[in-house]
Parts: sequence; C-alpha cells; structure tokens
Amino acid sequence: MPEYSDIKTPEGFLFSVAEAAIKKPGRKDIALIVSEAEANVAGTFTTNAVKAAPVRLCMRNVKSGRGRAIIVNSGNANACTGTQGLKDAGEIASHISQHLGVKSSLSYVCSTGVIGTPLPMTRINPALDILIENVGNYSFIDVAKAIMTTDTFPKTTSQEVKIGKKAGVISGICKGAGMIQPNMATMLCFIITDIAVERKTLQSLLKDSVRRSFNLITIDGDMSTNDTVLLMANGMLGNKPITANSRYTNAFKSALDKVTCELARLVVKDGEGATKLIEVSVKGAANKAQAEKAAFAIANSNLVKTAIYGNDANWGRIMCALGYSGIPFREDKTDIFFNGTQVVRGGISNNKDKEATGVLKSKEIKITIDLHSGKSSASVLTCDLTEDYIRINAEYRT
Amino acid sequence: MPEYSDIKTPEGFLFSVAEAAIKKPGRKDIALIVSEAEANVAGTFTTNAVKAAPVRLCMRNVKSGRGRAIIVNSGNANACTGTQGLKDAGEIASHISQHLGVKSSLSYVCSTGVIGTPLPMTRINPALDILIENVGNYSFIDVAKAIMTTDTFPKTTSQEVKIGKKAGVISGICKGAGMIQPNMATMLCFIITDIAVERKTLQSLLKDSVRRSFNLITIDGDMSTNDTVLLMANGMLGNKPITANSRYTNAFKSALDKVTCELARLVVKDGEGATKLIEVSVKGAANKAQAEKAAFAIANSNLVKTAIYGNDANWGRIMCALGYSGIPFREDKTDIFFNGTQVVRGGISNNKDKEATGVLKSKEIKITIDLHSGKSSASVLTCDLTEDYIRINAEYRT
Repeated sequence: MPEYSDIKTPEGFLFSVAEAAIKKPGRKDIALIVSEAEANVAGTFTTNAVKAAPVRLCMRNVKSGRGRAIIVNSGNANACTGTQGLKDAGEIASHISQHLGVKSSLSYVCSTGVIGTPLPMTRINPALDILIENVGNYSFIDVAKAIMTTDTFPKTTSQEVKIGKKAGVISGICKGAGMIQPNMATMLCFIITDIAVERKTLQSLLKDSVRRSFNLITIDGDMSTNDTVLLMANGMLGNKPITANSRYTNAFKSALDKVTCELARLVVKDGEGATKLIEVSVKGAANKAQAEKAAFAIANSNLVKTAIYGNDANWGRIMCALGYSGIPFREDKTDIFFNGTQVVRGGISNNKDKEATGVLKSKEIKITIDLHSGKSSASVLTCDLTEDYIRINAEYRT
Repeated sequence: MPEYSDIKTPEGFLFSVAEAAIKKPGRKDIALIVSEAEANVAGTFTTNAVKAAPVRLCMRNVKSGRGRAIIVNSGNANACTGTQGLKDAGEIASHISQHLGVKSSLSYVCSTGVIGTPLPMTRINPALDILIENVGNYSFIDVAKAIMTTDTFPKTTSQEVKIGKKAGVISGICKGAGMIQPNMATMLCFIITDIAVERKTLQSLLKDSVRRSFNLITIDGDMSTNDTVLLMANGMLGNKPITANSRYTNAFKSALDKVTCELARLVVKDGEGATKLIEVSVKGAANKAQAEKAAFAIANSNLVKTAIYGNDANWGRIMCALGYSGIPFREDKTDIFFNGTQVVRGGISNNKDKEATGVLKSKEIKITIDLHSGKSSASVLTCDLTEDYIRINAEYRT
C-alpha cells in the first residue's frame, strides 16, 4: 500500500471534489483538476470500437494538445448513451470552461461506472458549481478517492525530476479494478506535472510509456469503453520546454515510466477480488511480439489464475495456454519456474510441484517461462481469479 | 437431464470398464469400446500446439481410417509427459491389440485429467487385462461414466436412421466440463454406429458436424491439450456403404448432427460450476465469420457471464464485448434481446432492464444481438461463471 503522505504534487494544479449522488448518495463522486496556467495535454484512449461519450470528447479536444481542466465522475460511464451522452459530456465541459473563462475545448471530461444509463444531469449541474466553489480546498488524493468504483484503495504515486537546479514533479492517480485488458490505457489515469514539455514530445512520451505499463497488464481480458490516460504539463517550473532530444528528456521519460508502471502495478494489485499479484515473464522467445502474445495467453487463462489462487503449482495449464497462444515453440525445450523454483525442465515435470506449492503461498508470484528459442522477453502483470471477482461482478449493479 | 434408458446402441459394439485407481481409488476410471468387426474410423483433434501423447497416437492411427478398439482413461491426461508419455500410450494400444489379435494401429488411446504426470502404468496394465476379461459385461453408459472428471452427469445420446427397410443407430458419449473452447473437438467424444459409411466420407461428415456443434461452444476459453472426437462405423447393419452422394447421406448427416449438437449442449449445460445455459445469437452480420467472432467475444466475456449468473441484465457488458470483438459494426444500429425482451434499441437503453432481470432467472438464456448490417448469423453456446467454477479449479489437483 502506498504511503499517501509521501505523494508530492506539482506546482500550479488545484483540486476539488463534490457529491453528485450519481450512483447513490453518501460519497464524493465527482472531481475537478485545474491547472492555473493553460497546459500541454497528451492522451491515450481505449481501442474498443464502442467508445463512451466522454472518450469521444477527450479524443477531439486532445488534438489541440492544450487544456486547463479535467472533470471526472464515477458511478456512471456515460457509455452507450447515444446523442444524449455526447450532449451531456459537452455540457459539463462548457459549464466548467465558462467558470474558468476559457473556451470549452480546454476542459476534458471523463466518466467511469455503469454502462448504458444517461448521466443524472439534474444532480451533476449543481455539483459542478460546488466543485468550482471549492477549487483548492482538496488534494490530489481526494480526487483519487472520488474516482474509485470497485477499487479498494486510491492509487497514486509521484516522482521528482531534477531539471538543472530546480526539481519538477510528476504525479499520477489511477482507478482500475475490473474490465482491464491491454490495448487500451487503463480505466482512468491522470498525470500532472509542472515540468514544461513540448506538445508533440509530450504525446509521444506518454504513448510510449503507456505501451510499457498499462498495455502490459490484464485482469479479466475485458477491454473497457472508457479507458483514458491524460497527462497535463503546465510548465510552471519555468524550465526550457523538453523536446525529443533535450538534455532532460531521458530523466523525464524515466520518471514518467516510474509513475505509469507503479500505477499499473497498483491497478493489478487491486484487481477485483484479487489476492495475489502475478507477473508472467516469457523469455527466450524469437521476438518481442511472440513473447508478449505467449505471456498474455497465460495471464488471461482463467484456469492458470484459479490454480494460483488455490496455491496449486498446476504448470500443465501454463503449457496448455502456451500451446493455444498461437506462437511457434518447442514443447521439449520449455522450462517453467514459480518464483525461482523450476517445475518444468525440457517440457516435462521436474518433480518440484510440492516445493512450488509452498512458494505459491506468497502474495507476489513470478511465473517465468523460458522457451530457449531466441533472445526476446516480455512481462505481463495479472492477478488471481477468485470467488470475490464473481461476487463483485454478479452484483455490480444491485 | 437425458433419460439413459432411452439410449440405443448400435449392433456389434461391446463395452468394458475397470478400476485402475489412476488419480485415486474407488471408481471405474478406464474403459474399452470394441467393435466386433474392423470399422472405418474418423477423428478430429485439438488444435493446441501442445498435444497429449494419446492425441498424437490417434492422429497417426486415424490416417489409415480403420480401427477395432478405443481405450480411454480419466484422471490423467498423459500430456506434457515427453517420450515416456508416447511410450505409455503405445504400450496400452499394443496390449489391447494383442488380446484382440490385431495390429497395434487398430487400437485408439484417449486420456483426460491432470496434465504433466506420467500414467501409473503399474496399475494400468493389470486393469487392461480386467477390461478384456469383462468385454460385453458393461454398457455404453458405463463407459460414459468412467470418462467423467469434473462432469456431474454422464453425457450420452442416440439417433436411429432408417436405411431402406432397416434401422441403423448412431450413439455418442462425451465428457467435458472445463478447458472448453472452440477450434478443437471437445474434451473427449466417442460416436459409434453400425451403419456402413465409406472412409473418406466418414471423415468429412464428422469434420463438418464438429464444426456445427463442438466448435460453437465455449466454457472458459481454455483450449485443452487432449480434445478428441472419434467416430467408428462398423457396417454391421449390412447396408451399402454411404458415400458423399448416396441416397442416405443426408439422413445420416442429419442424425449425426443431432448426436454431436446434443452432446455439445450437454457439455455446456454441465460446464464447471454452471447454473445456466446461455445461447449467444448474433444476427444481421455482414458475414458468418463476423457473426461467429462477435458471438464468441460475448460468450467468452467473464463480465457478461458473471452478470447472467447474478440475474443482472447488464447489456453494457455485451456492447463492450461487441466493441472489442474486432468486427466492424454500427453502435447506433445495434439491438439486444434477453429471451425476447428487448433491452437495447439502436445502441441505447430500451428501459426494459427491470423486465429483463426477471427473464434472467430462467435456467436457459438466449441473448440475441441484431447488428442490422447484413444477413448472416451465428449461435454459440456457453454457460454462466460462478464461484463454483473458481472452487473447482482452485482445488482441482488437491
């Protein structure tokens, strides 16, 4: 669990949260992030063909690469809501932009929650006024709490980056829990920084970082309609804007990776019903694409995930998933390890299942598969599959 | 539940079962099917790259299109067992063939159960002798019972086919339960008939029938290493062998489809932990391949399956799965029905979720998705995902 008191936030960002009773009353479920100065904005979005209305709005706005505010609600995804959904998202953006005295396209809107129900705008509109009134009275962690759905803890992390004699900050929050699968961003993730970064560089650095973090996790193989990662860089540090080949590009890139990878790890750790974090690492593959394909086949197998939950070193299910992954490989060259205990040598049992069963009682499991067919590797994070996942998702709307 | 007393068996097939205490003692876990006359044999097998030793043996033997016996064991899959596994499967085939006085390649061997543990040949060899001694003392249902693993009931069905003035019989048994996904056969299925069918015709009729039955079901998206369907036609009815264009080809084909489709339905009905049978029917698709792709994306979604389990008409998860299925479609033209109750009209809520929740209490659910983009359709059978699936698979080897 992260120590929230250690989380730094960059200069020039203000936060607010309010209760709009979107799914039910009793909690803050709408939040606002405002940059004091107009910021460069980058974004990555779900590749699901069914995109929520706010995703469509953000995708349009991010073309300008500029922004002032992000408004997020939990409890309702505003997805599959037709033209009404687009109208509602647009109205939220206009409402906040008007208060800030900027054009509507500088406000980004994100939603997460139940699909298919129109937003309760009669309750959201007054909550937007309260958000504005309270700007600056809340923290980034309060925003992280407001965007939780089935998450059991708020997810946040930060990194300091030395830029000459000054120190900039990159901070991120994230919500996850279910409907998590690669080729998306994650459910919702907001990263803010006071370091100045040139627009196009910001977009390309974010895209690469998401590829190395959120696109290498899976909880249930279900790809959401709302996944969004937004990165705002307001330049309040006063540094010379970072470009593709600046002196500080690598430092920024590496700190950004730390933020996205830590948030991705927290999302998997808090996977719906999960009791264990599982890293599936495939090495010795002919190329990176094959290593990733094999790792995802294993990480998405319900049978592998239930075996890990049951402390059962049932490596046959790993061989089986490898077999249907579609990559070419030699069964008789394959080695499998659980946290360093080798259970398979050359495709057959190494007679270490008993030792491995003990190893599996750990809360963090690393499954290593060595294909001995090349030099490429890939790691994917996932979690175990438990009765609680079923319970949470059978009762989600009740 | 089928009425086992109604099950007919064809002429000239004898059955036997015995206890080899393969996983544990206390049940008949090995079975033998013998045809009195050498029969034509057709087979379809898993497309998993990791194939169990007995699958490799059957694939080799079926090239001749001829056979006398099938030996099946449950409790151990003889998969990922290397050269020892191939040797053991070969030894079983030789053992039975010797008793029958035929060449080894006329005996087919099938296994199902735990992956990665060598067969206990010291217990299997004496059990083979007992099998031979008792040939004819048991029924086809006894074989169906012996091959069960996590199945909760034996799966069997039969059809009569009028061939001129005589009546032939096609009977089938099957085991399933978990690790079920298309592009395979099913776990294990054995079909026997006394109707004479020409070798190549038999293979092509089986392949087509499997495509329309076992390849349109999914339980957990995990494709097994052992899936095998074998069809033996011993010609004891004495009819003129059926060829591709015989007078009785269609009658045979239609009866065979009834057998394979009924067995496939029973496999899904008995899916591990399942409480409901779900048919996902996609219509109005541009072509058959797209209809199947969309239906499988929905049928394999853990979130859709848990919602059905929880009697929740959460159609947003269906739209979401459709969105990541990879087929082109118009969200705003999509209609969704639960057993005839329309919950989505033109991509948005039809405000019938409450009615649909009542409908979902039924044990058989039909989800119909109309894409209104063409004339093709496809149906896939699946089941709900419950806590019991988790329990069964977390504890499978304990």
